Amino acid sequence: MSASTVITILELAGLYVFATSGALMAVYKGFDVVGIVVLALLTALGGGILRDLIIGATPPAAFTELSYLVVPLLAAVVTFFAHGLVHRLTFTVLVFDAAGLGLFCVTGTLKAFDFGLGPLQAVLLGITTAVGGGVLRDITARETPALVQVETDLYAIPAAAGAVIVAVAHEAGLPVPAVAVGAAALVFAFRLTAMLRHWTAPRARHHDASGGRDVS
Amino acid sequence: MSASTVITILELAGLYVFATSGALMAVYKGFDVVGIVVLALLTALGGGILRDLIIGATPPAAFTELSYLVVPLLAAVVTFFAHGLVHRLTFTVLVFDAAGLGLFCVTGTLKAFDFGLGPLQAVLLGITTAVGGGVLRDITARETPALVQVETDLYAIPAAAGAVIVAVAHEAGLPVPAVAVGAAALVFAFRLTAMLRHWTAPRARHHDASGGRDVS
Amino acid sequence: MSASTVITILELAGLYVFATSGALMAVYKGFDVVGIVVLALLTALGGGILRDLIIGATPPAAFTELSYLVVPLLAAVVTFFAHGLVHRLTFTVLVFDAAGLGLFCVTGTLKAFDFGLGPLQAVLLGITTAVGGGVLRDITARETPALVQVETDLYAIPAAAGAVIVAVAHEAGLPVPAVAVGAAALVFAFRLTAMLRHWTAPRARHHDASGGRDVS
Repeated sequence: MSASTVITILELAGLYVFATSGALMAVYKGFDVVGIVVLALLTALGGGILRDLIIGATPPAAFTELSYLVVPLLAAVVTFFAHGLVHRLTFTVLVFDAAGLGLFCVTGTLKAFDFGLGPLQAVLLGITTAVGGGVLRDITARETPALVQVETDLYAIPAAAGAVIVAVAHEAGLPVPAVAVGAAALVFAFRLTAMLRHWTAPRARHHDASGGRDVS
Repeated sequence: MSASTVITILELAGLYVFATSGALMAVYKGFDVVGIVVLALLTALGGGILRDLIIGATPPAAFTELSYLVVPLLAAVVTFFAHGLVHRLTFTVLVFDAAGLGLFCVTGTLKAFDFGLGPLQAVLLGITTAVGGGVLRDITARETPALVQVETDLYAIPAAAGAVIVAVAHEAGLPVPAVAVGAAALVFAFRLTAMLRHWTAPRARHHDASGGRDVS
Repeated sequence: MSASTVITILELAGLYVFATSGALMAVYKGFDVVGIVVLALLTALGGGILRDLIIGATPPAAFTELSYLVVPLLAAVVTFFAHGLVHRLTFTVLVFDAAGLGLFCVTGTLKAFDFGLGPLQAVLLGITTAVGGGVLRDITARETPALVQVETDLYAIPAAAGAVIVAVAHEAGLPVPAVAVGAAALVFAFRLTAMLRHWTAPRARHHDASGGRDVS
């Protein structure tokens, strides 16, 4: 298999597991089949659509590559009929999700460079590609986004590390394809380790737990 | 009246009732006049704006046709001053809402074809046009989107049926205008029947009501 | 200093305080450092990104001007390490926030005119620029948007007043730069007065507090 075939297969696997995480949340919340399809599509495609709208790549890739729509729809159908089985595979789903995280933060960063953005902006869009769909899933399902919560194992930070590595390599004139593969693998390992060891991101010290709001 | 005049009148009527549904929710939730205007505009225009951003039709139609802004603003003003009367007309609002649903899923699908998208993508954008505003309304008002809930009478599924019919006709080379009118009428009748008979969409069997979240 | 230097400094100050309001909310809600950065960026940049996507100015200014990203990131870092101090400066933050409100509703309206939009549309986008980030912050943090709530001191209405003044001057052929400065100052004073006197926007009379939802 050529490198681009491998990347395509990994991308579709990533979309499949992202969509599965959305569909499973819809099942857990008792949503109907429409909710399952909506959350599956939003989780898998939301981050890439946000990135493409921002860089001006319209229509977004999700609307030009048929497989980008078909694969998440397939994940929704499978989860609808076999969510009990899918649920038992949660750890497997999370492993593939980590692979998707690694892949999408790298490809998102590279696509932003392709459209002429600067390195900090490309990093931000790489992270958005990887984590944006999950945030849209949580907002639509009325969950506090897992991304921002202190009890969540590191998720955005591995993606940020991968995006930064790719951006540094790009700016330094290093061979980007090789670095990109390494960065995606590193994000994958970083995320899996963070999950297994329950690493969490720091929050501000001396937290005032009042939950109050003093500014509008 | 010409066909295009009829379509324009129906579109504006659809925008009016979509905006009314947003304004009424704002009134029920005790929001102020700003909230009434925001929810009215978002409900009426949100779906079409999402579609236009995705297909690259900027500025979106909502920002180029003055009547697309004026009509929802009018609905917000009327609801603000006469929401008691509007509330008594809820069934009438729902009938017009069904007409808007039928119309916008058809026109949304056709506009996506005009911008060169494929049939599955056009169907998805047709549905988005029809139901996207309601989802944005619910998210902004901190309601779980009616669209995804199992107790909601069928809403997205009639829209999907209409969009599919238009896409099949388009791909098969059938006379699209005639089919489009029929599809919009069918969606209207389908949605009204679903409301009157309280048809709901299936959810996944053996629902685990724990509401837990096992994947992030 | 030239006028454009003054405007740039005020804009960056506005972005800084908008980002601070997002970061503080994340601290109050116990979010981790990722949540603090996400809410800071979303609050500061969300309104302008929405405006730029709608007028077709991609990539949005937030992704072309490095300082537009660096300043909110700086605000997130400062709030993370010194939120206790920042909290004690809440009134100062609110004063700068009012300055940002005045500035962004004016610059947003002018940018929409630059891209050929009509006066009503330009007003709407001016308001969106000024208040959109705060709405996205509240939605992501699972707060009912302060913007739509009746107990919130006037916020959108001063912004609307400023946008309307700029649009009228633009349409009437008046000297726009002079009017724009005056309009921003007026919004600033209007918002500060509304805060100090707790002016609120009207809601619909005879509010039915059932919170029920009769339309979908």
